[in-house]
Formats: sequence, structure tokens, C-alpha cells
Amino acid sequence: MPERIGSISELRAAYRDGRLTPVDLAERVLDGLAGRDREPVWISTVAGNELRARAAELTRDGDPAALPLYGIPFAVKDNIDVAGMITTAGCPDFGYRATEDAPVVRRLLDAGALLVGKTNLDQFATGLTGARSPYGSCESVFGGGLVSGGSSSGSAVAVAAGQVCFALGTDTAGSGRVPAALNGIVGVKPTRGLLSTAGVVPACRSLDCVSVFATDVAGAMRVWHAARGMTAADPWGRPLPAERVDARMPGTLRLGTPRTEELDFFDDAGQAVRFAAGVRRLRGLVGAARPVPLAPFLAAGDLLYQGPWVAERLAALDGFLRARPDSVLPVTRAVLETGRRYDAADAFRGQHRLRELRAQVDRLWQEIDVLVLPTVGTTFTLDEIAADPIGRNTTLGRYTQFANLLDLAAVTVPNGFTAAGRPASLTLIGPAFSDTTLARLATAFTTTGGDSATDPARGPDEPTRGPAAPAAARTSTDQAAADQPAGTSAQVLLAVVGRHLAGESRNAELVELGATLAGAARTAPLYRLYRLDSADGVGLPGLVRVASTAPDGHPIEVELWRLSGSAVGRLLARVPAPLSLGWVRLHDGRDVLGFLCEAYAAGPDAEDISATGGWRAYRRTVGAVRDPGHPGSAETTTGGERGWAASGR
Amino acid sequence: MPERIGSISELRAAYRDGRLTPVDLAERVLDGLAGRDREPVWISTVAGNELRARAAELTRDGDPAALPLYGIPFAVKDNIDVAGMITTAGCPDFGYRATEDAPVVRRLLDAGALLVGKTNLDQFATGLTGARSPYGSCESVFGGGLVSGGSSSGSAVAVAAGQVCFALGTDTAGSGRVPAALNGIVGVKPTRGLLSTAGVVPACRSLDCVSVFATDVAGAMRVWHAARGMTAADPWGRPLPAERVDARMPGTLRLGTPRTEELDFFDDAGQAVRFAAGVRRLRGLVGAARPVPLAPFLAAGDLLYQGPWVAERLAALDGFLRARPDSVLPVTRAVLETGRRYDAADAFRGQHRLRELRAQVDRLWQEIDVLVLPTVGTTFTLDEIAADPIGRNTTLGRYTQFANLLDLAAVTVPNGFTAAGRPASLTLIGPAFSDTTLARLATAFTTTGGDSATDPARGPDEPTRGPAAPAAARTSTDQAAADQPAGTSAQVLLAVVGRHLAGESRNAELVELGATLAGAARTAPLYRLYRLDSADGVGLPGLVRVASTAPDGHPIEVELWRLSGSAVGRLLARVPAPLSLGWVRLHDGRDVLGFLCEAYAAGPDAEDISATGGWRAYRRTVGAVRDPGHPGSAETTTGGERGWAASGR
Repeated sequence: MPERIGSISELRAAYRDGRLTPVDLAERVLDGLAGRDREPVWISTVAGNELRARAAELTRDGDPAALPLYGIPFAVKDNIDVAGMITTAGCPDFGYRATEDAPVVRRLLDAGALLVGKTNLDQFATGLTGARSPYGSCESVFGGGLVSGGSSSGSAVAVAAGQVCFALGTDTAGSGRVPAALNGIVGVKPTRGLLSTAGVVPACRSLDCVSVFATDVAGAMRVWHAARGMTAADPWGRPLPAERVDARMPGTLRLGTPRTEELDFFDDAGQAVRFAAGVRRLRGLVGAARPVPLAPFLAAGDLLYQGPWVAERLAALDGFLRARPDSVLPVTRAVLETGRRYDAADAFRGQHRLRELRAQVDRLWQEIDVLVLPTVGTTFTLDEIAADPIGRNTTLGRYTQFANLLDLAAVTVPNGFTAAGRPASLTLIGPAFSDTTLARLATAFTTTGGDSATDPARGPDEPTRGPAAPAAARTSTDQAAADQPAGTSAQVLLAVVGRHLAGESRNAELVELGATLAGAARTAPLYRLYRLDSADGVGLPGLVRVASTAPDGHPIEVELWRLSGSAVGRLLARVPAPLSLGWVRLHDGRDVLGFLCEAYAAGPDAEDISATGGWRAYRRTVGAVRDPGHPGSAETTTGGERGWAASGR
Repeated sequence: MPERIGSISELRAAYRDGRLTPVDLAERVLDGLAGRDREPVWISTVAGNELRARAAELTRDGDPAALPLYGIPFAVKDNIDVAGMITTAGCPDFGYRATEDAPVVRRLLDAGALLVGKTNLDQFATGLTGARSPYGSCESVFGGGLVSGGSSSGSAVAVAAGQVCFALGTDTAGSGRVPAALNGIVGVKPTRGLLSTAGVVPACRSLDCVSVFATDVAGAMRVWHAARGMTAADPWGRPLPAERVDARMPGTLRLGTPRTEELDFFDDAGQAVRFAAGVRRLRGLVGAARPVPLAPFLAAGDLLYQGPWVAERLAALDGFLRARPDSVLPVTRAVLETGRRYDAADAFRGQHRLRELRAQVDRLWQEIDVLVLPTVGTTFTLDEIAADPIGRNTTLGRYTQFANLLDLAAVTVPNGFTAAGRPASLTLIGPAFSDTTLARLATAFTTTGGDSATDPARGPDEPTRGPAAPAAARTSTDQAAADQPAGTSAQVLLAVVGRHLAGESRNAELVELGATLAGAARTAPLYRLYRLDSADGVGLPGLVRVASTAPDGHPIEVELWRLSGSAVGRLLARVPAPLSLGWVRLHDGRDVLGFLCEAYAAGPDAEDISATGGWRAYRRTVGAVRDPGHPGSAETTTGGERGWAASGR
């Protein structure tokens, strides 16, 4: 049995410590594949010399610190394009040689990942068993004839078997979650649109997601970070709202649990026991828990295969199906053909019904943050699936197939084994864009405590950050002042950001109050700087703090002035609205008093000048562009006019 | 010819000055209807004695200052439910007596508006001509056999004829814009979901909007403000994002204009001349203008009647159509029946195509803020429509029918008359939730300059406010302080919102600093109050100002404390982040120093307690629910736990 490749973090540590190079890794990968690349896991693999050449190039030119997936081997489900390789979608006669990488693959390659090959799947990604492919049926890594689950069967098994560190799947009805459950690994089903589906053979185009398999949540989320991004070619792409980049801490979350009477384990008592145990552990991690009704979720799920959405699959494949009916597996054809039962009015009625269900579920998200469900109610062997391929497929999808219809995110994690030795799994489900929050809870569930080194909410190679929840923490300066007798007035440091800077028009006010310059500094990268209009046309800079771990915060240049507490009060009376005085976090972690701007004033009419790094730098920029001889003459520049043809006035 | 009722603002002025009561107004309305309620404008009218009773009740009990539509007479298109009246949707055999008001009607009645009756429409709101109703064809108020436009024909004519001040229409393909154009009035087509479509007979359920007709933009937007709101019964409702409540100033807007070669006036040179003149005027109002391609808009519009969306109309009416085919007008039936041509796969393909077009249009909104188009390319007489009822209907919809498919907002305004005496009109179009910005530009276009009395961005009965752009205005307090010699320290007023209130835990800090209570006050309705977590569990209130004309701002109870400027500085050093001291606008318009909270901290974890009106009221609420005997014992209550089962820990 060949050696397992290891996890992403293990490989990264080995690269960092010089214990491993991509060239070494490539040989281990090829050893692992030796004799196995004909198994049903793989449909095609990258030639050994190509893999070695790419590894050598990375070893020579790549920077392990700069590339978040440097030398990490991965697999791609064979319904996603890789330039130069055949995309079969599990149907040999459908296959075509892709001329371009799917954008999601391109991003991973650009991040330094090493592509190993393309993996088997349920044909056209239609199915949840792993037993609907002319390339063979995948067995779970746990053996015993257990199905691998599908449709991303090969991707899940390749990761679980340690042949690669991670793999891309796709997930429309549960194809990124069910095979994770049946192989004891992690499956991240991102919010629709975060990972581009351009270059992916459509199943239900409006619902399809690219998903990620890995052995741990941190690894999967590292891939999620590297893979996501909008492309102009993809009309389904959606950006992650800035305020949702942050994960919420598990202790702040309200967990929804299914009501016992709505759970169905299909007489598999072992799965019921495991799920109850998992929920107990989760309840210990979250802030609160309550039972919620599953009915709207289950009703939405039924629309996918027992409703008009089958016609969306048909819409993508109808031409091929009519031209080459014998090229399609009988079970797949039977499923797709049910799409012909529905007319356009049925499709719209289905969408109206879905909208009603979604409104019910949206109201639930007012009351809970995360829903926990079993990933599958029970497991099946290949023989059991063969005996009832459509009915048991439906059983496998009970807890997954509604997610994309209802615009949800999901993270699937292992949950031990039943007494009979079958793998158990649960899935954390949240509304769109809750991906990082789900991942953080999933990490807490799968690891012992909140080790920041495996914090899934961190971007690649970002420093560890504090919790996102607002804390009314008393700062050291605050504490020092509070310890002063009330009648006296300590000297304080004041961060000055704009027109009170030395040499600027209102600096005299500081000097008159007895303030002395204590030095230059910059803020923590938590701020944005806006230019507000002012009566004299110069503009007024406004410093606004952004959510604590938002990636769009900037460090802003400030000056620190030392003055008495009482002088600060007199200064405050001269500060015009919408400015205020509050606490500014500096780059070195200190909090000092300073000028802030109320966020309401930084509306669409305010010019965001954060990227300049500070008011002085901004003024230089404007002066240089507009009127090099008169750096102060920025009066004629407004944000709205730059880059635009003048209007007809 | 009966007297015109006048505009909303004229009526409001008359009520305010005591020159008019609702009782007087009711008589004028009834005079206006005398002998006209059998015309094709009205399908049913409220009985005279009912109208008089409602007017008497308002005159006796209503507060003109508190009710934004006090005594304002209005009409409702007869596909919107009014309790106790028949809803016909323009089809007598379809009619049913509604048991409840549609929520949008209920909100207007609650705002003091006087319902006059239900208006004619193109049957099932299918058509843009006003000539598809068994209740008769509406003629434009401009006469000459000109069609009124539709489908909201009666609503538009009732407003244009001065029988009511405003009217509700619906708008799926242009039914709230085309009849505004043909009758020389304003039509506001809100962003989908802002005005509830519950209680509205569906046309295309996923696209339908309730729209507003009035004689001026300010009036229409006053109605928009009063009418919008989410209801649990309406799965299509969407809230207006807080940051989009504000209108942008016209001078900051980038205007998109159609390319000449893509404009089609159907050989109506008069309309072409008027449109060019209108665009010239608009260019003088906006910050910049550029030509943009219309192709993606027009291609999306074609999907509505020449694509599978006809089947969405059919989905709503198929049962009735099959049961009572002869109850439906032949032209309406012919249109609806085309929906049978499409199967479910076609419907999904249409949605995929729309998604591609929408992605193209979404990218355009990166480059422009507003698109201007003619509302209709040309106008028709009733005879011309009769000669080609479907073809000329399509002509009328060229510039309107894409809007809801592409999730756009639109405001239609009069644009003079052609040399032949036909009304001209243009429509301002923007992305979802741009309603107030479109309205402000429309106001600038239709009025001479920026008269704040007609500012459409103002909420009902709000005092006139400054521009939404952040102003670094020096306040009176600020000015007074600036006039002080720097060495001395004037007494200032400080607005206290939470734990420094008299009797609260940190009030002693104020007293120690020599502060004295100067009285109670409340803020202008521009704030939200959040409860942030604090170490002691009591919570820390945070006051955050919202965008300047946001209707979701609240007045918040504060105490005013008088203290020296120097004491303010010492206080500031004890204020923990994320609190700051800045300027708070009071309800009487004064700006005083006060406690503010940085907006970043009022994230999803902070509890919004604005509706309680203030920290003391909030504490009472919590105390009363939790521990009536100990109003101060709220320490164990956290927002996340209320109504929650404790977790298993």
C-alpha cells in the first residue's frame, strides 16, 4: 500500500522546513498512483513527465511563502475543464478536449497547486451513489462493498485514499457532501457563485457549485480562499460581501437542530446514535440551540428530482441525448427523460413554490445561524444500490438536495463510525455567504479547541486575527485614564489624520492647546480614509473603521500629538460634524485617542482615498496630477468627474 | 368640467392651513366623479356615504401632521384587493370579493389616504394599450382618440384628469410607465419587492411590481415611502438596503444615453426631437454622460412576450382559461395561449439567457448610474391599436419590458409635447434599489432647481434636511467654541445615551467631572441604537447615525448634561472603544456633543434596540420580561439568548 500524501498543512510545513521539494512530492504522487490509475477513481491522469516538469518548475521558480498552494497535489472532477485534457463528464462519447482551464482550476494552478488528474463521477453529475459511470463504480475507502457516494466519487476517494491532498468536485444536489460522508473526509459546498462554474459541464446551471474535498476543514478553506473569484465569462458569479468574509465565533452562534420526528435514518439506528452524539458535541460549542422544522427544506429538495428542475438538466443535454441516446447510461437517461414531463408553466409554478419555501427558510435564519443535519441518513453497498438505483439515490439526497435551491452554504465533516463500522458524517448548513462561519464551527467540531494555526477563517498566510464580535474592551490608555483622579488630567496621545497634521490648516488649534508632536505612526489595517467635501474645497479627511477582520481595511498614516486630557475636550468642541474623537488602533496594537468620522457621512458621494495611505499622500497625488505648481489647489477636483467626459454644460 | 383635485402637496398645504378638511375634500371628489363613474376609467367606486364617513372620521380623529397621506384621495387598479370590493382584473367572470386589503393598500389607508375606487385595466394586466378591457377602452386625457396606454389605464387617467391625487398601478412589462407617458404624468416603478404584491392578481408573479402614478415626483415618492414594507405573507418582498435609502445628488451621477443607431421612434420624428431635447436637459443636470449599448436590454425584453415568460402568465391563469375560455378577451387569450409553446427546458434556457444578459447589464452599472430612454417610441390612437393590437402593443413596450427581468427601478416623467401635440415622456432607469436617486434626478428634471419642499428623497413629514452629501458644516456650538480663546473652556452640552444616564452605572463619572443635568431630549430620527456586549453582561449601548434621509432612522432618548470643555476631554479618555464623542443632532435641529459608536462595531452580533426608543426603555423591556421584580437585573440577559433554550453546556 503506497504512502499517503498527507494533509495540506503537513505538506506546507515540510516545504517550509526544507524537508520536501515539489520534485520529491511528484515522485511520491506517482508512486501512489502506480498501478492505480486504471482504477475507477481516475478517468485520466497527467503524464508522469508533465507532472515532474511542473514540479521542477515550481521547485526552481516558485516561492513557497508566496504561493498558498505551493506544491500541493490535487485532482479535478472530470466535468471541469483542464486545458489539453479530455472532459468526459462520465460519458466517453460526450468527451471533448478542453482548450482552456476552467477559471477555478486556473486559480489553483496559479496558487502553486500540482494537478494530478481527472476523476470519475456519476455520469453528467447526475446521481449521488458513485455507481453511475461507464468508467466503473467507485467503492468507499472503507471497503466492504460500500458505495463511495457521488456524483464526485473519484475526487472524494482520491483524497480519502491519500493520493492527493485535495480535489475539486461539483455539487448540485449533494455531490460534494454525500461522497465526503461516505469516505470520512471534509466537503465544503460553497455559496453558489463564489467559485466560478465557467468551464464546468452544466447539470442544473442555475444551481451548480464547484466544491472542495480535503482531509481537514483548514485545508479545504485554504483551497476555497485560493479558488474563489469572479470572472467576466461567468454570469453566475457572485462576490463575497465584505462583511461576510469574517467568520463568527462558534460561541456566538445559534444552532438549529432537526426535530426528532422529522429525522429519518431509514432504520439505521447506528447513524441515529452517531448524529445524536454529534449534536451533543455541537451544542457544547455554540451559544444556543433550538429545534427547527425541516419541512420547508425537505419540500424544496423534492423539487429537484421530483419536480421541474430535472428539466434544467435536460435543457443542457437534450441535444446530445436526442443525437446519441445509446451513449448515455440507462439509469441516467431515465432520470433526465423525466424532465420532459414538465411544461414551461410547470417550471414557473415550481419557482413560485420554491420562492414561498425560501421565504420560510429565510425567516428561520432570523432565529438560527447554523442548521446541523446528518449528511446521509444511512449508507448503502453497491449491491443495495443496484437493487434500487433511483429510490436509494433519493434516500441519499434527503438532507442535501435542497441546499442550492435555497441558496445555502454547507460544510460536511466526519462524525465517527457506527457500531457496524459505517462512516457517519454531519453537515453544517447556513445561509448564503456563511461559508467562513460554518468552517470555523466545523473546525471547532473536528479539532480540539480553537487552535489558531488551523483557523479556517484566515486567508492564506494571513496573520491570526482576533474575534470579529465587537468588544467593549477597555484599552490600556483608557485604563490609565480611569485610574487618574477625576479632577486631574493626564497627558494623552492623539492620532491626527488630516487637517490637524503639522503644516495643515488647522494644526494651529493643536499648538494653541499646548499639544506637542510625539511622532508619526500608522493605524492597524482596519480603516478606510474618505475625502468629504468641505466649504473651502480642500476637502476634509474622514477615518472610518471597518469590520475587524475585513480585508479591505488599510493602514493609514497618522501623527501622534501629546496633549492634556482637558485640552482634548476643548479641541473636541471645535471638531466639525461628522468628525468625532474616539479610539484609533495603531499598527503596533496600541489604542490611542484620535479623529474618527461617522460612517453615515462616508456615503457614495465621499471619495475613498484609502489607497493613497494617508491625507498627505493624497494631497500630493492630487497636486501632482492637477496642478503641480500648487499642491494646495485641489479645489477643482471631485471624485465624480475623474475619468469621465465632461457633461454638456 | 369638474374642478381638479390638485396635487398631494397642494392638498397637504390646504389641510395644514385649515383651508380644507377631508369632509370638504370628499365632496369635491364626489363632484368630480358625478356622472363620470360609469366611464371606462372606473370599474367600481366607493359609495358616497362610505367616502363621506371615512372623511368625517379623518376630520374628527386624524392628525394631519402625523399621517403622511392625510385626506389624500386615491385610486387602486382593479387587480389589487380592497376588502369588501370586487377584484375583477378586468375580467367580470374572474371577479371575486376580496376579504382583506392588499398590504400595500392597507398601508396607504393607515397613512390617512382616502380610497375613491378601483380602476380599469387591460385584462389580467396583459397589454400596454388600455384597449383590452370589457369595461371599455380608456382614452388619454389629451383626447384625439389617443390610447391611454395600459395596462394601468384607469389609474393613469384618474390621476391625469385630477379625479384623485395618486393611484396605484401594477407594472410587469411597462404598465406603470406607458400610461404615465400617454397621460403626461409621473409613474414610479419601484424596485421589485419594495411594495408588496400580496393581494395582487399575478401577471408574471416573479416580475410583478405595484407602481405609483401622481402628477409630480415628490407626490409619487411620498406614496412610495408610505406604501413600501415587507409582509410575512409575501415571499417576493425585499427590504430596501439601508445604504440605498439615500438619494444621490444629480451632479454626482453618470448618465447613460442610448446610441442613436439603437433608438427607434418608429418614424415618429416628433418623439425623436423631444427625446433629444430631454437628454440635453438631463446632461446639464448630471455629472457626466456617455452612450451605452441597448442590445442587452432589448434582448432581455424580448424574452417577456416572445419567450417563455408568457408561460408564467399562463401558470397563474391556466385553470380559469381552460374552465372559462369565453370569459377572456380573444386578444388576451391569444397572448396567453402562446405560453403553451414552451416546455420546462425552454423556461430554464430562457432563464440562463436572461442571466447572461443581466450580467452584461450589471457590468454597465459599473460605468453609469442612470440610463435615460424614451418611455415609448411613438403613440397610437385607438383605431391604430385596433388595426394591429399585438404588433403595436410590442412597439409600445420596446423601452419598458426589460426592466423587471433585469431587476431595475424606473421613474417616468413628462417631457413636453411633440409639434403634433402628442405627449412625450422619458424614463430614468437604474439598478435595483436606486429608486430615490432616480426620483431626485427626476425631480431636478421636472422642477426648476432644487426646491427642497419637493425633495423626493424626504420621508413623509420629515423636516427639510440638508443635502445627503456629508457636509463639514460648523455647528453653532462648534462656532461658539471656536470663538473662545484657546486657553479657556466654555461650558458645553453633552448628549448621554446609555451608561452615563442619571442612575446608570457610569453616571458618577459625569458627576465627578462637575457635569450637571440640563434636561431630557431626543435625537433627530437619524439614528440607530445597538446593544453591544460588555464584560459585565449589562451591555453597552451604541448610537450610530444612519444616512441622512433614511426612513429607518429612529429618534433616541438622550439626557443633556452641561460640563466644561476640559471635562469633556477627561471624560473622553475614559470612554471605551468603540465609543467616541462627536456631534449628535437633536430633534429640534441642534447639534450637541454626545456619545457615538463607530459603525464597524454595530455588526451582525450587535442587537438593534432602536425600536425601544432608548437605553432606559430597552432596559425596562428586558427587565420586565426577565425579572419583573428586579428591573436592574438584566445582567444575565444577552441578546443572543432571549427566547432561546439554553445550550447543552
